[in-house]
Amino acid sequence: MSTALLTDHYELTMVQAALASGEAHRRCVFEAFSRRLPDGRRYGVVGGTGRFLEALEQFRFGDDEIRFLADRNVVDAATIDWLAGYRFSGTISGYPEGECYFPYSPVLVVESTFAEGVLLETVVLSILNHDTAIASAASRMTAAAGDRPCIEMGSRRTQEESAVAAARAAYVAGFEATSNLEAGRRYGVPTAGTAAHAFTLLYDSEREAFTAQVQSLGKGTTLLVDTYDVRTAVDLAMEIAGSELGAVRLDSGDLLIQAKEVRTQLDAAGNTATRIIVTSDLDEHAIAALAAGPVSGYGVGTALVTGSGAPTASMVYKLVQRENGAGEMENVAKKSKDKASVGGRKWAMRRRNAGGVAEAEVIGIGERPQDDGNDRPLMIELVRDGEVVDHQDIHEARSRHAAARAELPRAATQLSRGEPVIPTVYEED
Amino acid sequence: MSTALLTDHYELTMVQAALASGEAHRRCVFEAFSRRLPDGRRYGVVGGTGRFLEALEQFRFGDDEIRFLADRNVVDAATIDWLAGYRFSGTISGYPEGECYFPYSPVLVVESTFAEGVLLETVVLSILNHDTAIASAASRMTAAAGDRPCIEMGSRRTQEESAVAAARAAYVAGFEATSNLEAGRRYGVPTAGTAAHAFTLLYDSEREAFTAQVQSLGKGTTLLVDTYDVRTAVDLAMEIAGSELGAVRLDSGDLLIQAKEVRTQLDAAGNTATRIIVTSDLDEHAIAALAAGPVSGYGVGTALVTGSGAPTASMVYKLVQRENGAGEMENVAKKSKDKASVGGRKWAMRRRNAGGVAEAEVIGIGERPQDDGNDRPLMIELVRDGEVVDHQDIHEARSRHAAARAELPRAATQLSRGEPVIPTVYEED
Repeated sequence: MSTALLTDHYELTMVQAALASGEAHRRCVFEAFSRRLPDGRRYGVVGGTGRFLEALEQFRFGDDEIRFLADRNVVDAATIDWLAGYRFSGTISGYPEGECYFPYSPVLVVESTFAEGVLLETVVLSILNHDTAIASAASRMTAAAGDRPCIEMGSRRTQEESAVAAARAAYVAGFEATSNLEAGRRYGVPTAGTAAHAFTLLYDSEREAFTAQVQSLGKGTTLLVDTYDVRTAVDLAMEIAGSELGAVRLDSGDLLIQAKEVRTQLDAAGNTATRIIVTSDLDEHAIAALAAGPVSGYGVGTALVTGSGAPTASMVYKLVQRENGAGEMENVAKKSKDKASVGGRKWAMRRRNAGGVAEAEVIGIGERPQDDGNDRPLMIELVRDGEVVDHQDIHEARSRHAAARAELPRAATQLSRGEPVIPTVYEED
Repeated sequence: MSTALLTDHYELTMVQAALASGEAHRRCVFEAFSRRLPDGRRYGVVGGTGRFLEALEQFRFGDDEIRFLADRNVVDAATIDWLAGYRFSGTISGYPEGECYFPYSPVLVVESTFAEGVLLETVVLSILNHDTAIASAASRMTAAAGDRPCIEMGSRRTQEESAVAAARAAYVAGFEATSNLEAGRRYGVPTAGTAAHAFTLLYDSEREAFTAQVQSLGKGTTLLVDTYDVRTAVDLAMEIAGSELGAVRLDSGDLLIQAKEVRTQLDAAGNTATRIIVTSDLDEHAIAALAAGPVSGYGVGTALVTGSGAPTASMVYKLVQRENGAGEMENVAKKSKDKASVGGRKWAMRRRNAGGVAEAEVIGIGERPQDDGNDRPLMIELVRDGEVVDHQDIHEARSRHAAARAELPRAATQLSRGEPVIPTVYEED
C-alpha cells in the first residue's frame, strides 16, 4: 500500500508554490528532534526508525493517489506531474532504533531538495512520535521489571495498527512477547496468550473450563484464576494440572497481597515451579511496587500503548539548512521566541567517562571531531541516494537498547520525575 | 488486507480449547461497554462503529494468515481448519456512530457462537476504544468553538494509521476538515492546509515566500505570519495580497493577545474580511479561552489525537449471556469485586423530559418496553446473519452527533471536571 497520502495537505501545497516559484529544488537539510523529553522522564528511546524506512520505500504517488489529488484539486497539474514521478533520491542519517535520546538529539537528518524532503515530514513524525513514545514508556517498565519478563497486551486499548507498532516498539525496549498476532507475522515479535474470563464463563463450571484448557493447551498453560474465587480456583487448577501447572494469572484486586497468598498456597501444595503472572492496569510504578512480591511476569496493556502518560513524543521536523539564491548552503531557523530551533546540519555523540558511563549528549554543527575513544558516535547512515542501506532489524535494536540504557548513569531508571539524566551540550566547530 | 491477525493470541487459543471440548458453538451474547467515562467528562461519543464494520468484512483467515498460524504453532490443526472457513454469521446491534454514551451503555452487542464472537474482541475494542476517545475529546472542542470551525491537524502526533482514524472521528464530532489526505481519500473528510514555517525559511526573504504562495495558491490563501516578526509579516501579507487576503495564521506566542493585535492591524488597513486562524497546542480549554478573541478558526493537533488527556476509552467486551449444557440461554458475569459486569442481553434508550431534554440513560435486560414518545431507542441493527446492513455513513453520523449532543442538558458541555450529565438507570424487566 502506498504511504504517500499519510501526509498533511499543506506539504503538497508548499511543493506546488515552490515548484511554481522555482525554489522547490534547492538543497535542504531537515532535522527531526525533540526540544524536551516526556514530562519528568530522564531519557527517551528512539522508536520507529525501521518502520519509517519501510514507509519511505512505499512512498509513491500511484494512479489511485494521483486520481484523488486531481479530483479534489488538492494541487495543480504541474505538481501532480511532479508527484507522479516522485522518488526520494536524497540521503538520510540518524540515531539507530533503540538508541537513547535527549533534548535536541538529531534523531533523523534528511538531506535532499526542499520538495523531496518536505513531503516526508508527516510520515516521519507520525511514526517517530508514536513509536518513540511507546519505546520510551516500555523501557521504564522493563527496567522496573528487572529480570522478570514483561508481555505486551495492550492491543485492545489502542487503534488496531498502532497496536502492531506498539508491540514492535515494546519489544525493542525489552518486552519479551506480545499478544498481538499481526506483530508476530509482520515483525517476528514472539506472541503469547492463553485465556480470558469469557472462556471460564463459557462453561457450566470453572472445573469444566480449566479441564478443557489443560486438555487442549497442556499442563504448562496459564490458568486465569480470578473469575470467581481465587483460592478455590488455585486449588482447582492444581487438582487438574498437578505439579506441572505452568502458571496462574491474576487480573484484579490487590496484586501484591494476592500474589503472596497464591504463592503460599501453591508452595504448600508442592507447586513450587508454577509461576504467577499478574495483569490489570500495570504501569512502571505498579511493576516496581510488585518487585517485592513473588511474581514471575507482568502483562502490560493500557499504560504501555498510551505511553504511560505521554502518548506522543514531541518530535518536530525542521528545516535547518538550505541553499540560498547564490547556491551556497545557509543555516536557517525560525525566530519565534517560544519555539526556537538551532540552524545547521548536526552531528551527535555520547560522551562517556573513563568507566564507560554516559556524561553528556554532545551535539555540534559542521564536522564531527575525531573520536577520542570515550565518545561514542550516535548517528548512522540509513538512506544513501534514495536507497535504504540499513533496514534496522528489531532484534539488533533490542540488543542496542539494552546496551545504551546500561551505559546511562544509574539515576536514568529512577521512576520519580526528574530532569534528563545527562545534559545536552552544544560543541562549537 | 485481512484484519484477522489484528487479534490477541489468546482469542485463538480459547477457540482451540473450546473446539476440542465441544463448547465452541454454544450461542453467546458479547457486549462492548465502558464502566466509566474518561476522567471528569460529562458525556462520551461513540466512534469507530463504521470502521469496525469495514474490519469485520475483511476478517478472514487467508493463506498468509493460516501459514503464519501454522508455522508458529499458535493453534492446532483442527483450529486452523476451522479458522480457514471463518465467516462471522451472527447478528450485531449497537449505538450508531456519533451517538452519545454513558457508563454501561451497551455500545455494541454481538450475538453468535462463542468461537465466532470471541475472535472479534480485539478488533472491536481496538477500534471503538481509539475512535471513541478521539470523538469524545473532539466533541468538547467543537462545543467550545461554537460556530467557529475546528480543523484537525494532529497527524504528526499519532501513529500514521491512527491519524486517519482520528481525522474521521473528529469529523463525526463536528470538526470541519482535516490536514490528513488519506482521510480525505478513504472517508471523504474535507482536507485543508496551506504552508508551514519551512516554506518561509526556504526563501531568501519572507517577501519572496509570501509572493510565491499568493501567486500559486491565490490571494484567498492563509499566510503563516510568525516565522520572524508578526507585525511585519502581517503588513507584508496585506501588501502582497491586498484586501482579498484570505487569512493569516498564528502558531506561537500568546494567541489571545496576538489575535487582538493582528485584528486591529488588519482592520486599520481595511482587511476586515481577512480571517485569523490560530494553532499551537490548542485543546478545549484553550479554545474556550480564545472565545473572547477575534479568531475565525482553530487548528487542533496534539490534544485531539491524544484524546485530550484520555487517549483510550475504557470499553471492555464481555460475555454476558450464553447457552448452557441444557441448551438454555443463561446470564453470566465475572464475580471479581473491582471489575463487576452485569449479565444478560441489554436494550437501551434515552429518557427525555417533555421538553426533549435528556434525563437518563435507561438500560434493561430482556424486552424493551414500548416507546412512550419521549424515550428514544438507542440501538440499531448493524449486522444480520453475518451481513452488514448499516454501514454508518460518516456524514450522517456527524449530523446524528450534533443532534444527540444538543439534546443533553446544558451542563454536558461544561469543560470543568464533573460527573456524567445524566445518570445510568437499570430498569427491571
